[in-house]
Amino acid sequence: MIYFNTDYMAGAHPKVMERLVQTNAEQTVGYGSDDYTARAKELVKQACGAPDARVYFLVGGTQTNATVIDGVLAHHEGVLAADSGHINVHESGAIEATGHKILTLPSYEGKVKAEDVRGFISNFYSDDTYEHMVAPGMLYISFPTEYGTLYTLSELEDLSGACHDAGIPLFIDGARLGYGLAAEGNDVTLEDIARLSDVFYIGGTKVGALFGEAVVITNPDLLKHPVPLIKQHGALMAKGRLLGVQFETLFTDGLYHEIARGVVQKAIRLKDAFVAAGYKVEVDSPTNQQFFRLPNEVVDRLKENVGFEMWGPRGEKESVVRFVTGWTTTDDEIDQLISYIK
Amino acid sequence: MIYFNTDYMAGAHPKVMERLVQTNAEQTVGYGSDDYTARAKELVKQACGAPDARVYFLVGGTQTNATVIDGVLAHHEGVLAADSGHINVHESGAIEATGHKILTLPSYEGKVKAEDVRGFISNFYSDDTYEHMVAPGMLYISFPTEYGTLYTLSELEDLSGACHDAGIPLFIDGARLGYGLAAEGNDVTLEDIARLSDVFYIGGTKVGALFGEAVVITNPDLLKHPVPLIKQHGALMAKGRLLGVQFETLFTDGLYHEIARGVVQKAIRLKDAFVAAGYKVEVDSPTNQQFFRLPNEVVDRLKENVGFEMWGPRGEKESVVRFVTGWTTTDDEIDQLISYIK
Amino acid sequence: MIYFNTDYMAGAHPKVMERLVQTNAEQTVGYGSDDYTARAKELVKQACGAPDARVYFLVGGTQTNATVIDGVLAHHEGVLAADSGHINVHESGAIEATGHKILTLPSYEGKVKAEDVRGFISNFYSDDTYEHMVAPGMLYISFPTEYGTLYTLSELEDLSGACHDAGIPLFIDGARLGYGLAAEGNDVTLEDIARLSDVFYIGGTKVGALFGEAVVITNPDLLKHPVPLIKQHGALMAKGRLLGVQFETLFTDGLYHEIARGVVQKAIRLKDAFVAAGYKVEVDSPTNQQFFRLPNEVVDRLKENVGFEMWGPRGEKESVVRFVTGWTTTDDEIDQLISYIK
Amino acid sequence: MIYFNTDYMAGAHPKVMERLVQTNAEQTVGYGSDDYTARAKELVKQACGAPDARVYFLVGGTQTNATVIDGVLAHHEGVLAADSGHINVHESGAIEATGHKILTLPSYEGKVKAEDVRGFISNFYSDDTYEHMVAPGMLYISFPTEYGTLYTLSELEDLSGACHDAGIPLFIDGARLGYGLAAEGNDVTLEDIARLSDVFYIGGTKVGALFGEAVVITNPDLLKHPVPLIKQHGALMAKGRLLGVQFETLFTDGLYHEIARGVVQKAIRLKDAFVAAGYKVEVDSPTNQQFFRLPNEVVDRLKENVGFEMWGPRGEKESVVRFVTGWTTTDDEIDQLISYIK
Repeated sequence: MIYFNTDYMAGAHPKVMERLVQTNAEQTVGYGSDDYTARAKELVKQACGAPDARVYFLVGGTQTNATVIDGVLAHHEGVLAADSGHINVHESGAIEATGHKILTLPSYEGKVKAEDVRGFISNFYSDDTYEHMVAPGMLYISFPTEYGTLYTLSELEDLSGACHDAGIPLFIDGARLGYGLAAEGNDVTLEDIARLSDVFYIGGTKVGALFGEAVVITNPDLLKHPVPLIKQHGALMAKGRLLGVQFETLFTDGLYHEIARGVVQKAIRLKDAFVAAGYKVEVDSPTNQQFFRLPNEVVDRLKENVGFEMWGPRGEKESVVRFVTGWTTTDDEIDQLISYIK
Repeated sequence: MIYFNTDYMAGAHPKVMERLVQTNAEQTVGYGSDDYTARAKELVKQACGAPDARVYFLVGGTQTNATVIDGVLAHHEGVLAADSGHINVHESGAIEATGHKILTLPSYEGKVKAEDVRGFISNFYSDDTYEHMVAPGMLYISFPTEYGTLYTLSELEDLSGACHDAGIPLFIDGARLGYGLAAEGNDVTLEDIARLSDVFYIGGTKVGALFGEAVVITNPDLLKHPVPLIKQHGALMAKGRLLGVQFETLFTDGLYHEIARGVVQKAIRLKDAFVAAGYKVEVDSPTNQQFFRLPNEVVDRLKENVGFEMWGPRGEKESVVRFVTGWTTTDDEIDQLISYIK
Repeated sequence: MIYFNTDYMAGAHPKVMERLVQTNAEQTVGYGSDDYTARAKELVKQACGAPDARVYFLVGGTQTNATVIDGVLAHHEGVLAADSGHINVHESGAIEATGHKILTLPSYEGKVKAEDVRGFISNFYSDDTYEHMVAPGMLYISFPTEYGTLYTLSELEDLSGACHDAGIPLFIDGARLGYGLAAEGNDVTLEDIARLSDVFYIGGTKVGALFGEAVVITNPDLLKHPVPLIKQHGALMAKGRLLGVQFETLFTDGLYHEIARGVVQKAIRLKDAFVAAGYKVEVDSPTNQQFFRLPNEVVDRLKENVGFEMWGPRGEKESVVRFVTGWTTTDDEIDQLISYIK
Repeated sequence: MIYFNTDYMAGAHPKVMERLVQTNAEQTVGYGSDDYTARAKELVKQACGAPDARVYFLVGGTQTNATVIDGVLAHHEGVLAADSGHINVHESGAIEATGHKILTLPSYEGKVKAEDVRGFISNFYSDDTYEHMVAPGMLYISFPTEYGTLYTLSELEDLSGACHDAGIPLFIDGARLGYGLAAEGNDVTLEDIARLSDVFYIGGTKVGALFGEAVVITNPDLLKHPVPLIKQHGALMAKGRLLGVQFETLFTDGLYHEIARGVVQKAIRLKDAFVAAGYKVEVDSPTNQQFFRLPNEVVDRLKENVGFEMWGPRGEKESVVRFVTGWTTTDDEIDQLISYIK
């Protein structure tokens, strides 16, 4: 059996694991006040070209989204997001549980359009009853999106402009950020992400860490009391240095990007193989998530030897499926998969 | 100037006001434990044919919706509602502020379809990841809807069945309930509302009271601790008997329904006049809210002498407008309006 | 039977009721955008000597406390309050329901001491783990307190200084503010209240209004989006002008203070009578709430003809009781009470 | 430098780390649906003698407390706890952030008394205004407490009885549970904990795991939808099997208890040494946290070579300090410490 279900099926990249083992018996102060965490923060800031940013490490994505969004929004504000956004679909109402509405925008293969953001905001304030409605207080986007797609630099600049013209911050969910940055054709750098957003996070869980997400706050006016906010959200790790050790490793000698490049290359081999075999690409993703529309008999046959996910309900004749590569995916596994679809 | 902006522009129906004045100097215990409130509860239960129901009086609609919905839902649950529902649009996120997501259904002139309710629930539980999603925990509908439209008895029975088949309660927002019950062609009675829903409220604010909404809980398993819930929501009136006095008056000798009938008759005269004058009816409403699509020059001309609301943005040539009648609306005012549109 | 249970047993002062009746049939726009409300706001600001203040009218006290405190505090902050404070005891957890902890201070007959406020704050920030604790984000006091007692001007200045030295706002719950201002020996004016606090409210419900509390925001940095905040808390009245009409009346020709003076005078007659009859004063209150420690046989005897409240559990031989006067209390009723205790 | 600051300064016990390394490259399904987690659940249930219990693994203590308490309480309910309880002091208001008040009881070296629990509940319901107050909805205790102290079996039975007589559940915070069970003189077993409480957790983070807490729900009526609740609280780990692997290891061949015994033995050696050196024991703790009252010159001298925490503010002549042993503490380190205090 070979697995393409998702990118969090295995533990940590061997180098990350090795460092956790090496440092295991050391004693450090708790809650991220240790030297590993301090060095990791510096490395992350350097990688972002954002020396004045503030960096905090949290454990998982849903918790990070809820903590950041709750911390940024005022009481009467909601968060703009694609209706397909992870926060709107797959976080068990974690955002609403903090008291805030998700204001949905149309999703174009997971992406939102700056013109829709501008339109929403302009319609909102032109409505006489806007004080009885939930004000758009920030924009949430994911890069890559839940469909593996990417914003171009120009699109990102436009979105950033739409937010800043309206005086609201832009938050980028980078749970799979590495895979976006590593994608062929991508023209967005980590520095661009840092420069164009107000707060974003660099996902570790899905890109080589055992767990962990690095929140980078570039807007100095946001999230002025992050520690109690994170603690209150149950997201402050006692052994905070576990996160520091991991991100220090990932951001030393470009390991984070190296992992991502390898994973994306395998995803593209996989996509090319499906295309070569004559199957339909459902969403043209340049990252590590690939979506195909396969005949049901192919789906059923593959299921015997390969793990992958149905994407939506089974169709009458064809179904959409998702294949994801991760740091454990080998070229052998891709070859093996190719042998099944030829 | 004559006003058709909304149905809460004046105070209370004279009989209600009179009773408030008569009882003003009396001293009673607070928080709705007085005899007026007790009698009002009895009268409401009788009118609903629901002797075992529990009745509570709150001050306003948004507060009632938030209190009921927050009290009914479990943590992981959200409330199904039309995307046009008042709770989804015009309550400043009061529902989300209690921690719950609004799960939107398509709106058909303000109404939802039982098949959409069934479809949502069945899709939800057939999704493998449903435990990461917000479970549908109740259905919210309004009767009449925000567009003045009504469910037929058969539609209401179908919706009630869809809810109860799925084991979730049906909540009916009756902010303008009287106008629905009084509408020509309506085949739903107050007893039907009580029988088919699990909890609903009878709006007073918009139907002759100075303020006040009567929550009727017919499902004995719901809202087992209403008093602290209401208090916690800031909705427990110190001088609770003010609500008791008003609802006692409204439900004595059928005053509530009498008021509603008069208001609806005037709305229909108004609609007929617009139709006779050749204007387009935007939504065919049998209740006290009427929606027309008027040429902009008519809109502008009317605005000089008549108060009414734009419904959505001004169009290029035509715009949708709303006219609402209330207990103060007189036949003279309708005549006057008619003179302007002839 | 004569009643001294509380000060919200009757309706509104006749002049307030009269104005509600006079204006009843008028049509005005909703939600407090009407002219009555505008004039009432001006009158309140004049009375407070605070022309730049912002004024909003809410319906009841618990809802006002929850709305203001929720609006003022950041996520990681709590509200300092006497452990006897209304928000800590009798609001069904309405403050915590908004997500905030009440940080209790010792109560001295309902009052807090500036040295305790300073001590709490200084201890808090000298604790290494303060970022894991709830930061003191504002101070809540009541004037008069729940025991009818008052702060002197000097005490209030000291409390205000303690707050402002620490950079936190002072919020004064004035549910019975009129009675404090009218008390003999009181040296605090409404202008002082406005000058020394950042936000406070002038209670109407217990001082002659049918219902209603006037929130006065003097600190321009606080509560920048009051309307959606109030709406979200279910506290924005549809017929907002009802509040405007009432406060316009109360703050015309000094009616508010006139009502309060009469009510306090009767309370003092009542206190003097108990003292003259040899009974023990439990708390020496100069306002309309009076607390005595009476032999149980006296309690039982009085109960036959007089309404009043037990204050805490019945003692073995003696019990503490509370007597409250209100705008309906007459000198005859005081005489009658005196006849029972002689 | 030797460290006795706390028990979460190092990584995981070597056997736990070893298993994480061994299983690192394996691919499993996410969110705790894997076989490691299934086996860990079985082992925990066996160790608890509670075959029908439900077990869930969360990441950290504050998040576990907030998730369980939020999940158990109804809207109008609060949680009873010692005023020294971790949830009341050191969780940044995480409980209040879920909307619930902490109802404090007197702390006796970290413990609460059953008579105080009974007294609180009985006073509560004998108060006429109890519906305006926060109802006691559960009891939270810690075992060991924040002061390292333990309940006897008899005390625990009494507390359990007090809760169940009142119809409220008992929740035990076992962040350091192992150390309590391993203490000399302790007469409480893990089976007793499971039998007498309704829900509790077995702390991993502080007892040999890298991180992780095992929630054991023995009362079938509680927490009926744990997965979305945990997800909503941001506490559902993507790579859930990391928790499964760790708890499987800890509950194989009694490793959890073995670790705890060693750690407690060292703490007792440490305590005996302080006593032998003539220093005052501040709290007589039989577990891995030890509290002493030392002359300030001793505190200052020790600080040069030893890490430990001040417990409260520095006194004039003496200060209270805390020493904690952990799985990394060696007898050599204890010897070294002893050499400093002789």
